[in-house]
Parts: sequence; C-alpha cells; structure tokens
Amino acid sequence: MPVPQEVSLQSGTFALKKDFRISLSGEPDQRILQASTRFLRRLSNRTGLFLKQGYVTDTNFGKGGSLHIHVNRPGEVRLHEDESYTLDISRSGIRVEAETDLGAMHAMETILQLIESGESGYQLPGIEITDSPRFPWRGLMMDVARHFQPIEVIKRNIDGMAAVKMNVLHLHLTDDQGFRVESKSYPVLHQKGSDGQYFTQTELRTIVRYAADRGIRVVPEFDVPGHASSWLAAMPELGSVEGKKSYEIERNAGIFDPTLDPTNEKTYEVLAAVFKEMAEIFTDEYFHIGGDENEGRHWDANKRIQAFKNEKGFKDNHALQNYFNTRLLTHLESYGKRMVGWDEILQPGLPKSAVIQSWRGIDALVNSAQQGYQTFLSNGFYIDLMHTAVNHYKTDPLPDSVSLTDEQRKLILGGEATMWAELVIPHTVDSRIWPRTAAIAERLWSAQDVNDVEDMYRRLEIMSLQLEEHGLLHIASRDQILRKLAGGHDIAPLQTLNNITGPLQRYTRNPGGTMYQSYSPFTLWADAAVADSETARKFDSAVQAYLNDKNAKSGDYIKDQLLIWYENHEALSKIIRVSPMLKEIEGLSEQLMEVSELGMQAVYLFEKNETPDLNWLSEAEKVLKKARLQGGRTELMNVNTIEQIVRSLVKVETGN
Amino acid sequence: MPVPQEVSLQSGTFALKKDFRISLSGEPDQRILQASTRFLRRLSNRTGLFLKQGYVTDTNFGKGGSLHIHVNRPGEVRLHEDESYTLDISRSGIRVEAETDLGAMHAMETILQLIESGESGYQLPGIEITDSPRFPWRGLMMDVARHFQPIEVIKRNIDGMAAVKMNVLHLHLTDDQGFRVESKSYPVLHQKGSDGQYFTQTELRTIVRYAADRGIRVVPEFDVPGHASSWLAAMPELGSVEGKKSYEIERNAGIFDPTLDPTNEKTYEVLAAVFKEMAEIFTDEYFHIGGDENEGRHWDANKRIQAFKNEKGFKDNHALQNYFNTRLLTHLESYGKRMVGWDEILQPGLPKSAVIQSWRGIDALVNSAQQGYQTFLSNGFYIDLMHTAVNHYKTDPLPDSVSLTDEQRKLILGGEATMWAELVIPHTVDSRIWPRTAAIAERLWSAQDVNDVEDMYRRLEIMSLQLEEHGLLHIASRDQILRKLAGGHDIAPLQTLNNITGPLQRYTRNPGGTMYQSYSPFTLWADAAVADSETARKFDSAVQAYLNDKNAKSGDYIKDQLLIWYENHEALSKIIRVSPMLKEIEGLSEQLMEVSELGMQAVYLFEKNETPDLNWLSEAEKVLKKARLQGGRTELMNVNTIEQIVRSLVKVETGN
Repeated sequence: MPVPQEVSLQSGTFALKKDFRISLSGEPDQRILQASTRFLRRLSNRTGLFLKQGYVTDTNFGKGGSLHIHVNRPGEVRLHEDESYTLDISRSGIRVEAETDLGAMHAMETILQLIESGESGYQLPGIEITDSPRFPWRGLMMDVARHFQPIEVIKRNIDGMAAVKMNVLHLHLTDDQGFRVESKSYPVLHQKGSDGQYFTQTELRTIVRYAADRGIRVVPEFDVPGHASSWLAAMPELGSVEGKKSYEIERNAGIFDPTLDPTNEKTYEVLAAVFKEMAEIFTDEYFHIGGDENEGRHWDANKRIQAFKNEKGFKDNHALQNYFNTRLLTHLESYGKRMVGWDEILQPGLPKSAVIQSWRGIDALVNSAQQGYQTFLSNGFYIDLMHTAVNHYKTDPLPDSVSLTDEQRKLILGGEATMWAELVIPHTVDSRIWPRTAAIAERLWSAQDVNDVEDMYRRLEIMSLQLEEHGLLHIASRDQILRKLAGGHDIAPLQTLNNITGPLQRYTRNPGGTMYQSYSPFTLWADAAVADSETARKFDSAVQAYLNDKNAKSGDYIKDQLLIWYENHEALSKIIRVSPMLKEIEGLSEQLMEVSELGMQAVYLFEKNETPDLNWLSEAEKVLKKARLQGGRTELMNVNTIEQIVRSLVKVETGN
Repeated sequence: MPVPQEVSLQSGTFALKKDFRISLSGEPDQRILQASTRFLRRLSNRTGLFLKQGYVTDTNFGKGGSLHIHVNRPGEVRLHEDESYTLDISRSGIRVEAETDLGAMHAMETILQLIESGESGYQLPGIEITDSPRFPWRGLMMDVARHFQPIEVIKRNIDGMAAVKMNVLHLHLTDDQGFRVESKSYPVLHQKGSDGQYFTQTELRTIVRYAADRGIRVVPEFDVPGHASSWLAAMPELGSVEGKKSYEIERNAGIFDPTLDPTNEKTYEVLAAVFKEMAEIFTDEYFHIGGDENEGRHWDANKRIQAFKNEKGFKDNHALQNYFNTRLLTHLESYGKRMVGWDEILQPGLPKSAVIQSWRGIDALVNSAQQGYQTFLSNGFYIDLMHTAVNHYKTDPLPDSVSLTDEQRKLILGGEATMWAELVIPHTVDSRIWPRTAAIAERLWSAQDVNDVEDMYRRLEIMSLQLEEHGLLHIASRDQILRKLAGGHDIAPLQTLNNITGPLQRYTRNPGGTMYQSYSPFTLWADAAVADSETARKFDSAVQAYLNDKNAKSGDYIKDQLLIWYENHEALSKIIRVSPMLKEIEGLSEQLMEVSELGMQAVYLFEKNETPDLNWLSEAEKVLKKARLQGGRTELMNVNTIEQIVRSLVKVETGN
C-alpha cells in the first residue's frame, strides 16, 4: 500500500536468512546508505532475524548482496523529481533499479510490505514491479499551531509518510493559537506568541534534514493576514484595530478577527524578515502564506484602512488582500520561492507562479488549473473531521468527469491530507492521522482504477500494524487512555464500547468552537475513539451477507457480537460507578445494550421469517432514535446496520 | 509513593471542581509557575475537569487559589538543597508550604497521587503531611552508550523521576559501543565514535534545563580509561596498543581491552578539552569519570607503558590508573567540579573530594565512608538485571547493621538505579526502568521502616498507571511487540503467556555477551516480558493463602488461573504456526500447559487430602524440571509456586 502501477507475480520465493546482505551500485550517496541501514534494522525487527550485516557504509556496500540496489544518481528532494523504481524478486535474489535514490527508498518500503511467513521462516514472493506515482505532490499537513506537536511527533509521522510513499510535509506553523517557530529577527514573536511551545531553528533544520533523508519535502506555512492573533499578542502594533495595545493568544477554535494591517509598512518589514529567516531554513521552493478565512471585519472597522483601500482603488477587501499577497510574493520571489496559498488567494491579477491549495473542492481546483495555476486538493482529505477512510479514498483530485486539457491536467499536482489540530495533542494526533492517511496516500500514488474499498480496508489493517514500528501511537494511545479512565480496572468492557464508537464528525464535537479550550483535557473517551471502527465494519459486512442469505455463516457471528454488546453494559456500569470521568458514557453504554437487544430480536424475527407487530416497530424506532444520541462526544457506529435488520423485516412484510 | 515522613489523616475531603485555581506567594520564580501550569494540565487529564485556569503566569498567580503554594525562595538544583514541604488539605482548600520550589514541586506530586473518586466526582482526602527525603542523592543512571536513547526518551524519564521524587539523572555518555555527545573541540569523536547517534550540545543543554525545571540534577559520565573503544575508533592514537592504526566501535557486550594510554600527553590534552566543554554544559558540581573494569591488558602488553610505570615507581596498574585519575581530577577541579567514579577509583592517595559510586556492594560503600569519601550505592539497584522490584526494595544503603559514626553516615548520600543498556532500545527501555524504579525511589526517600512489600506492590501498580501520563511506554510497548509478533492475530494468548514469563535474569540472557549485537532485534518475545509478573505474584499469594487454609476463597481463583494457562497452548499454537518469530516459545507454551496440568492435579489431591503415589511424584519432578527451561530468552514465573503445591502434598504425607 499504495498499490504499485504494474505488478507481475513470478514463481518461486526468496527466503530471508540471517546472511541477508545489501549491496549497492551506481551512485549511492550517504542518504541511501543510511536508508539501507534502517532497512536492515526494520527487516530484523519484522522477522526476528539476527542479521550479520549491521551497517551499510561507504566502505562496505560492495557487491553481491541478496538485495542489490542500483541508483543512477542521488535524487533532489523537489517537486517532479523522478521517484520511479523497478523491483525484481526471484528465488536467487532481489534487485532494485531506480533513476534516483528516492525511487530506491520507495522500493525498500515495497519490499518490507511484501514479507510473508512461509514453511521455514519468512520469505518474499517472486514478483516483478514497475512503479511510479500518479501525482507528484502527495502531502500531509500538520497543524502545529492549534496544539503544538514537538519534534519527535513530527519525526515519527515523517517515517509513517515515507512508509506509504508520501513526499510533502506541510507544516502549518502559525495561527491564532500559537506562533510556533523561533524568530531571530523578532524573538518577541515566539516569546510572546507561543506559551513557550515552539520549534527552535535548530529543530526546524533537523526536521527538514530528517524529511529530506526520507525523500520528503517540507513546505512551511505562515498563515497571514488573518489567523494572526498570536503574531499580534507579540506585536500588537501590526494589528488592524487602531491603537489596540494588546491582543491575547486565542484559546478557542474558529475564525477570529485579529488581522495584520496591510497598510502598515512595518507589517511588511516584519514579514519580510521572518520569511527571509524561514526561507533559508526551509529549502524547498514552495512557501505557503495561508491567506484563508480573512473576513476583514477589523479592516472594515478601521477608517484609515478603508481610506487606503479607496485611495488605491481597491473595490473590496479581497482586492486589498491581493495587494498584501502580491507584496509578500515579491519578497518570496527574491528569496527564490514560489508562493502557495489557500483558495482565497486566487484573485484577479495574482501572478501565475502562485500555487493554490484547495480546501473548497474540486470545482475550485479545476478553476485554478484552467486559469493556469498549479494546484492541489485538500477538500475531501480533512482527516480532522473524523470521517471514515473510505470517504477520503473516494476523493479523486482528477476524476474523469473534469474537462481539462493535458497541459491543465499537469497543473493538478496532487493533494494533501490536512490534520487540523484544535482537538488533538501529541499523545492522540497519530490516531487521527493513521491509518486513514495511508488510504489517501494510495489515492495519490496508485492508478485511478485502484478503488476496491474492501481490499483497501484489508490492506489498511495490515499497514496500521506495520506503522507501529515507527513509534507511532495510533493504536497504543487508545488503551493508554482507557487504562487511565478505568483507574486500575480491567479495560475490556471499555474497549468493547469504544471499539464501536466514533468521535462526533465534522465540527459537531466542539460546538461553537468554545466547548473545548486549547488547554482542555484531550485524553478522555472521545480521544480514545477513532474514525474507522473495524468492529462496525465487520459487523456491517456480516449483516449484509446475512440479509442476502439467512443461512450465511455470518449469522452466528452477528448473534455473538450482539450478545457481547448487550452484556457489556453490566460490566461497564461497575467501572463507571467508580470513575467519575466515565459518567459521560453511561447513557451511551445503555444505548448499546438496548440497540443490541433490538438487534437480537430483529435477527430472531428475520431468522424465523416472522413479521413484527406495530408496537414492536414503534418501540424499535424509539430505541434506534435514542441509540443515535451522542455520549462522551462519540456516537455508536452500528446503529444504521441494526436499523437495516429492522427495516428488512418491514420489507419482507411489504413483500408479502 | 514514596511514602511521606509524617502523614495525619483529617476529617473531610476537598472536592475538585472546574473552578480549581492555583495561587502562589513568597518568591515564586518562572520554574514554579511553569510547574503549576503543568500541574493544572495533569489534574485536568486525571479528572476530566475542564479547568478554567489555563496557565499560571507571573501576571496572574494572585491570591486565594483553591491550592495555595508558599515558597520562601527559588531552590538551587544542587546536592543537599532543601526539598522539604508541608501539605495541608481540608474541606476549604489546599495549602503547600516549602522553603524552596523544589519542595513545592514534590508537594504537587503528592497531591496528584492523592486524587480519589468520591460520590460526586474527584476529591482529595483531608490530610496533613510533613515530608522530606531520607537521602539527598536519589538517582537514575541511564546508559545511552550501549544503545543510544534520544532526547525524548530522556525527557519522559525525567518526568517519571520527578513523579517519584528522584533528583539525580546520571547519564553514562560514553562506552565501548558509542561516544554519545557532540564535541566541538574534537568533532571526530562523535563523527566516528557514534554511528551518527549522539546528543548535540544544544540537546544536552536542553536536557540539563528540562531536568533542572523539575528539580533534577544531571551528572554526566565519561567512562575512562577503559570502556574506550568508541574514543579509539575516532582517535586510535590515544590507544594503549603501540602503533595500532584503527579500532572498531564494539558491537558485543562485556569488558573489552581497548584503553586510553595514560602515558600519552595527548590523552590528557583531549580529555581536558572534552571535559572543559562538558563541564560548561553540565552545570552540576559533580562529574563522573567512570574508571571501572579496566583490566589493564593493553597496558601490560605495552613495553613503553610498563617502563613508564616502573619509572614512576607504580607498583601495579591500579597505581597507574590512580595517576591517570589524579591528573583528570586536577582538570576537573580547575573547572569547579568534584570527581565521581566507580569503586575502582578508590586507591591510596585519592583526594578526599572524590566521590565513590559503589557497584560492588554495601561493604565497599561503608569502606568509602570510613575513609572519609562521599559515596552512594548502586549495587542492589541494577535494574537491567531483571530482578523483581522487591529485590531492589530490600536494598538499604544504610542498614542498621553498619557501624559508622554520625559524620560517616552523612557521607552515604543515597543511591542510583542503573539502567545499563546492552539489551534495550528506546522502545523498550521504559519497561525496564518502570515501575520498578519507583520502589527504589521510595527506598531512598521514605523512612527506613517503610518496608511492607505487599503494600509497596499495591501502590506500585497504581503508580505504574499514573506514569503513563508522561508518555512512558513501559506498559504500551509490551502490546506493541506482541501485536507485531502475532502478525494481525488476536494477541490475547500471547499476553496470557507473556504475563507469566520474565526475561532471563542477571547476565544469562546474553551468554558471553555475544548472542546479541547492538544491532540485533530487541523487539522480540523477551523484550515484551517484564521483570515483575503481576500475574505470578497474585497467583503466588493466592496459593500461600490456600495452602494455609484449603477453604480459602482463593482456591477457585487458583483453579481458574491454572485452567486458563492449561488451555492457552491450543490457541497460542495456532498463532505460532503462522508466525516464525514465535517458534522460539513453542516449548515454553507447552511447558506452561504441562505445569498447569500438574498444578491442577496437585490442587485436586490437596483438596481431597489425597496422597500422591511415587510414580506421580516422579512424573511431577520431570514436569517441574522441564518447566524451568527457558524459551525465547524468558522463563515461567509460576514454577516455584506450583512446586510448592506439589511439595505440600508430600509434607502432608510425611506428617501422617
């Protein structure tokens, strides 16, 4: 995962043994040597083999390895670099060929995914693969502003990205809730804008190098002129409210009014200086200025700004913001950068060198391409909204339906999963990113016709386990939270309920953006729940099979599962009684009991071909309705499926 | 945990609500303000309360908080600083008084341990506590040389130390297997001596500050003149083998010959320069030079070194090493440092300012104190040897039996848990340190007569759960490893077996130090197992109760547990069959089945008052013997207990 472009299975297998050795030829540089050493460690970890080769260094990479890697040249970590590779596994050995080491590193990830257990140990299947990405921009955006994510969180997520062949890490570095980089030109920005939580410049350089070592570009985002409370908490003189002496770092979520003053020359002076520092650290050609969701209220309220607007002949705030953007673009160009911004920066007169990240959707994307701008998609990839993986998997940045010329199609660079961080902390962010982002990675790498959802989920489960080797906590953090909530009691009943719940989707978990503050606890019930309930999915497909054929084997599975849910309430109630933090899910647990009882009854009726009476049906409606109530900011994920069993009884009746 | 010196329970409780607020008076500095903010976050995490107070800063610490903290002055993070505090909790509020903020931070840890659930939410019991440590040096040594442990591992363990009121982090920074600090004077040392795995100087400063913010001193160790392979891999010219042009970083475990040349002036030049850099970074007064396990083979083999020894009139290599140490001491003193070393540095003529860390035992400790040296104990606290917590808990650095004057007693500063890292990696090290180190922390803080083992274990289990809030992986890493080993199958049968196994103790897991290399896989079966099997302990105490009284309730528990173990083999075998990594425990799983069957038979006989025949007994001996075989570098932890049931049958017989 992602599925390669061309795969051809061959006869025979390659047996993995402790004398496994890597050799390289062509122009291997330090990066591929280090990647080879990491590969050995991971192979060892996956197979338990005590490999004799410990390190691959420039003095020992020699010839004749079981895995031979040939690279023509070191790759450049930039857009449109060659990432292709071929992989040939036979009984006698493994051969990787790639134009660049970036392609070779992708090949190594593919090999690690192919390990299987055989008669006498681990092995690789005989196979020939020719592979390259469909899109050149396959990104993950991490918002480190709403909640800061320290460098070790970034690093382990970079490893996760590399494992699924993603190649752009976009860091959303500033927002109303925090200014997260050390500035040497204006240290007041991180001193007063971050609550002490920011990346030092050394750390930023480390991140850029760490990512580059894994073939990943890092694109920084400084979101201006809106989303600027943290800048203004440090430098109120840059704000658009005349004479306002102090701003506060924002603690809620939402869209706020504090905005940089586009008429103040000091604004440009500060931005130019900060961008210059950052342009040196972030060596990628692309530099993101945000530019979204500026509603201009503080501009409207400021007579001086309005006068400036009129004087310049700008017809609205969009035109004023375009003036602001264009000035920034001039600075960025002088540092050798291309400017990236969200949809809103696309205004008449925007130079064609700018790049549009679309949060609005495919129409906006297509519009940008038609106007000749490079663009990539994030709408549909908002992983913070807690939709299931299939939702993202079905989002294609370049569906057949769009009508674009070949030239325009090339402008659609790919997409980015966006991990907005209002409701996540370092301990939980992995469980929001993974494993779903692997499905997005596949959408952006694999061919358009790779879209078998069931097979995607099958592979996603395997991938999820493999991602743990990078120290990602997407699985482990759940039990850690449940252990805390259970206060020393057995967590099994909590797991049973949590596994069938999902956090409230879209923006409903945090009504008005004010239920949670940035310092609220984010290690409660909803934080343990994840978007994709494997249990719900398996239950649902069992039910589909059963409704099609009541003799299907899945009938027993369904009944067992319903009974487990039904009986769970009693065990869980005992724990809830002594753990005040769990009070919020008492209702939810009861709902699960009731709806499972309803399910059991419905299955019984279905099995016996019996028709329910109206009383029963009306009672069923009530139970189903109640089962949809949230508890602990989560909801049950099996209600629709149980409702389907109930509805099937009615259909049968109607059929009669 | 650790148990305070004086505790007096009062009537009433203090209810925790979301308007909980901290106020401070006296001389609160930034450290205690930040600690207060961290306290709020942890309180929130533990109770689920959405506290209104988000941050405690120098502009809002005011008066009238529910928790009021009074500190007379900022503490200095140095040996013998005042760490005492008083804590008074009543219905109306909480008051902490402390001479220094270090004491106040200890009080905050105590409060977080006192949280209990009540009728209407969480609360604190009415209580009066007066507390101070028994010993001033309560340390954890982390070996980051054998396997490097990156900064995030160090940080989370510092948090763990603070939670149990430890105050010294000793970093073992260099050894045969790695030179783990950036040197600016001789960069070749980290460049060639570390495989690229070392702390930058910025990271070292960050560690020192992070620790100081939590009242913890950092003592660096540069182990010389032995344990020096990594120095010599970088600078072979400092070695004691005449003309040897290259050394290798060591990959095995053990005691090795490469030794710095004490007759070479360049050796002192390099050490003086490196120590000078490090003396500036590590601001603590104490500086550790190791000095252990130099067997002097390379000195003996070098005629020039022998001639030097004779010329100086040194009677043996110990005297030569003392010359070496004394020269280092002169440098260290000029940097304002006191020298610490392991037992071996104690030689005639060693200046009294030196400090002895005893790995040899209590006699060596007493000897050092009698000679007038400050000293502290590590023998008995070797947590890498995988003994159970009770072993360490029973080790007292100053038992009643020793005969020392009051003045000499004061020289016994305390002790240090030592986490040698031959067999641990970042992912597993927490599970070797915690929770056992909390028992050592209690030994070093609490009164000598706090030694109820059962109560210690009861509290240790609670503490273990609480330690997870710092991101420590001591619990989570186990399941992560088992998930990998199970390859997608249910891990329950693996847990059942793993929970009743412990890794081979002492140095038996790694025979000759050569079974494992530093790059071997350390995420296998033994790495998931931990030293203290809670399951084994509970089973054992149930059996003790039952053997005393066969009507004890624990009889059912014992039978259930034996049945679970007995039946586990079938389920586990299915997973082993498809996971080659688990082949190594096939025998162990079978042994558990057999010994549990034996246990069930023995319980049956015991219950019925039946006497076993000789055949059965001889068969039992065989089963018990086989059950003691290792599997996957672990052994079953319930064999002695089951043997006891068997033996009890024989006793009954003899009694008749």
